[in-house]
Amino acid sequence: LSNKNIVVIGCGAGGGTAAQFAKKTDRKANITIFEKGNYPHFSKCGLPYVISGKIKEFSELIEFSQDWFKKNNIDLHLNTNVLNIDSKNNKLKIKKGKEIFIKKYNSLIIATGAKPTIPPIKNIKNKNGLIEGIYNFRTIEDGKRIKSKIKKGKKAIILGAGLIGLEIADSLHRKNMDVTVIEALPSILSNTLDEDIATKIYDNIKKNVKIFTNHIITEIISKNGKIKSAIIKNKNNDEIKYLDIDILIIAIGTEPNSNIAKNAGCKISKTGHIIVNEKSETSLDNIYAAGDCTEYVEFITKKPLTVGLGSIVVRQAISAGINAAGGNYSYPKGIIQTRTTILFEQEIAAVGPTSKYFNDISFLSSTYSGFSLPKYYPGGKPITIKVIANSNNGRIIGAQAFGDKAAQRINTFACAILNEMNIETFRKLETAYAPPIAPTFDVETIVCDVLSMKLFHRKI
Amino acid sequence: LSNKNIVVIGCGAGGGTAAQFAKKTDRKANITIFEKGNYPHFSKCGLPYVISGKIKEFSELIEFSQDWFKKNNIDLHLNTNVLNIDSKNNKLKIKKGKEIFIKKYNSLIIATGAKPTIPPIKNIKNKNGLIEGIYNFRTIEDGKRIKSKIKKGKKAIILGAGLIGLEIADSLHRKNMDVTVIEALPSILSNTLDEDIATKIYDNIKKNVKIFTNHIITEIISKNGKIKSAIIKNKNNDEIKYLDIDILIIAIGTEPNSNIAKNAGCKISKTGHIIVNEKSETSLDNIYAAGDCTEYVEFITKKPLTVGLGSIVVRQAISAGINAAGGNYSYPKGIIQTRTTILFEQEIAAVGPTSKYFNDISFLSSTYSGFSLPKYYPGGKPITIKVIANSNNGRIIGAQAFGDKAAQRINTFACAILNEMNIETFRKLETAYAPPIAPTFDVETIVCDVLSMKLFHRKI
Repeated sequence: LSNKNIVVIGCGAGGGTAAQFAKKTDRKANITIFEKGNYPHFSKCGLPYVISGKIKEFSELIEFSQDWFKKNNIDLHLNTNVLNIDSKNNKLKIKKGKEIFIKKYNSLIIATGAKPTIPPIKNIKNKNGLIEGIYNFRTIEDGKRIKSKIKKGKKAIILGAGLIGLEIADSLHRKNMDVTVIEALPSILSNTLDEDIATKIYDNIKKNVKIFTNHIITEIISKNGKIKSAIIKNKNNDEIKYLDIDILIIAIGTEPNSNIAKNAGCKISKTGHIIVNEKSETSLDNIYAAGDCTEYVEFITKKPLTVGLGSIVVRQAISAGINAAGGNYSYPKGIIQTRTTILFEQEIAAVGPTSKYFNDISFLSSTYSGFSLPKYYPGGKPITIKVIANSNNGRIIGAQAFGDKAAQRINTFACAILNEMNIETFRKLETAYAPPIAPTFDVETIVCDVLSMKLFHRKI
Repeated sequence: LSNKNIVVIGCGAGGGTAAQFAKKTDRKANITIFEKGNYPHFSKCGLPYVISGKIKEFSELIEFSQDWFKKNNIDLHLNTNVLNIDSKNNKLKIKKGKEIFIKKYNSLIIATGAKPTIPPIKNIKNKNGLIEGIYNFRTIEDGKRIKSKIKKGKKAIILGAGLIGLEIADSLHRKNMDVTVIEALPSILSNTLDEDIATKIYDNIKKNVKIFTNHIITEIISKNGKIKSAIIKNKNNDEIKYLDIDILIIAIGTEPNSNIAKNAGCKISKTGHIIVNEKSETSLDNIYAAGDCTEYVEFITKKPLTVGLGSIVVRQAISAGINAAGGNYSYPKGIIQTRTTILFEQEIAAVGPTSKYFNDISFLSSTYSGFSLPKYYPGGKPITIKVIANSNNGRIIGAQAFGDKAAQRINTFACAILNEMNIETFRKLETAYAPPIAPTFDVETIVCDVLSMKLFHRKI
């Protein structure tokens, strides 16, 4: 009996993690990774912090090096393209440098990730691609290009006020650039927070950088092949402005790299993502997929959900790696989307869908602001939590927070959601209390008291 | 129909909270509190921080003032003793100053609290009570007496290395006193942490203060009516030492103030506590009890558990207050004992019984130490978590932690325990990830991975 050949396409966080867990599951398997880029498994989420200088070098973001894969007996090929998958005969056509060869597999894991969405702005590209001065923000190369352009007082425009756009805005603001964020939607962080909570975050952010919501860029104006300015338009009243620009960074989302899977016959969603189940299986035998190229389901609504957060990618990749190697591992019955960041010194976190996604679920929410410590203990910091519950049964279906230890507080709600916990039980949760740490009743239970009263029309 | 008379005995955190929630439940009820001491509802847990100087004045610990009760139409009587309860005729005999009177009630809430246990040490008392220089640590008066004796370099001995004993030790150490802690058991914090975790905490504490575990004080030696020294004995080898003492603080636990309830006919436990159910009902009609004078059940073992933590007291008091006023509110099916403190800059937290209490439950545990941030992000702080699961079914039954945000991490385990969550589900929990906040896999899920592998004899 020969050893199993497990092949992984892509060595981002998804592919790298999947390969590791495949190896842990079957130590005798031959594991091969083909990565089209220059770097092995690195932290994309760390890029803004190299820009800000918090992390010194881009190379520090490499979480698992070529050496690491070598020592762990995983055969990693960088700068290598998989041209196609022959799923009937379990083989791949590979291009490495000028060489083209065939690789057989017993199990295949597709972790091809996603590429930045480029908006259809007039003159954004020339024949070589994006105009000089316009950058994506997804690879170490992108990061290096941007870092080389940082200059105090120069004008940086960020297109997109999602998590990543605002993280870059924060980083460039720290480098004393003159930062402006352009967002087409009426609200910032629209996939992270409900509008009422986002508005409170917005108040803090606009003390530091300019933000134009409801605006789009209609045209890029260049000079000598370099960006010089842009025309932006207010979507509400069609008013036009000219904006001088030294660098423009595009952060409006991604498109999955799923063509190769589509051509192989994998079932693809309307949004172009590879559809996987809780075992990270695609529609084809022996082919698994994980990461930004995939779509699984959201835990509360059971609707399809694009995988985009690093924390989800690695968990899904564990499932892909273990199962591809003959193990048996399932992701929970859906993604709960626990998410967090720090923007301009303010910690933000959330779990569960934002309210706009609860189409046919009736819900109520409450928001409560308090302090992290008892009133009598000095140094308490503000914390605001919004909790959302199904109004038919009181089940907690979402929570959003900003302020002191928002992420860890949201983790407790994440645990509640995964357990389909009722607001009536959560409000009675014994939280850790000590004067230097937290009050007897933490904001996380008080907000549930408030919502419980609202839900059940009680005064108490 | 006349308004309901609700009487509360005791205005500590239990009585004060119960009265408030009774009033919220029935705005028309007449609520009366009789408190034998000098102060209304104050934070006992805050006392060490007035000693350390973090909080300026003892008066700041008063969470609800006499004025507050007045404004909220709750009739509070300080310095007032309830002499007995006539439960057949629903009336109390009261002594206030020299006046003795009768008070009728429809509902009665007993929140008489507990008093410090005084160990049977030779010459610890004279005819006036404790020898001068020996103090309890439970009331504002105790705190004031101790604070007046703080002097740099003087010798403070703390009897008892539980949470409170060590909090006082930390406070007096901050005031540059020469602090020694004497503990009869082999381990510190024996009701808070398992011995293996306590040992790690011990290493940090003994850099700051001296601790003698396995030691008892056998005799107090005084001079001119003031404490001068003590004889301490090593329980392992009976070796005797003399210890010079300027002040001795007793922190070895409490005894419930339950005589009045016992005389009224309430069912009392072997340990002398008033037995209550999830509605804070005693064995007698219309008599409720809450706080340190009571005993309820522990959530995992379903064994009786003395109520001692402030966070439990106030939750139980909500139940007592609402139900006494005709509402309907239940505590969860047991106490999970979420607890935390900071000792010598180290945050400690735990939930669930310590291992010694799992008599007939077979269990396994794992401990994992990691960092609060991804490796590549500077400033990560150590965090250690021990998790305990029932080895028959994988259910999480305890967790203990020290280090970064230990309390908030333990809150997530508290939520898990209350939901009877399995370690297999917890290990898959999506925790909040962002480089400046937490790694993709938090120590809280990694420790569950480790325990899961151990429990189910898997490599992965």
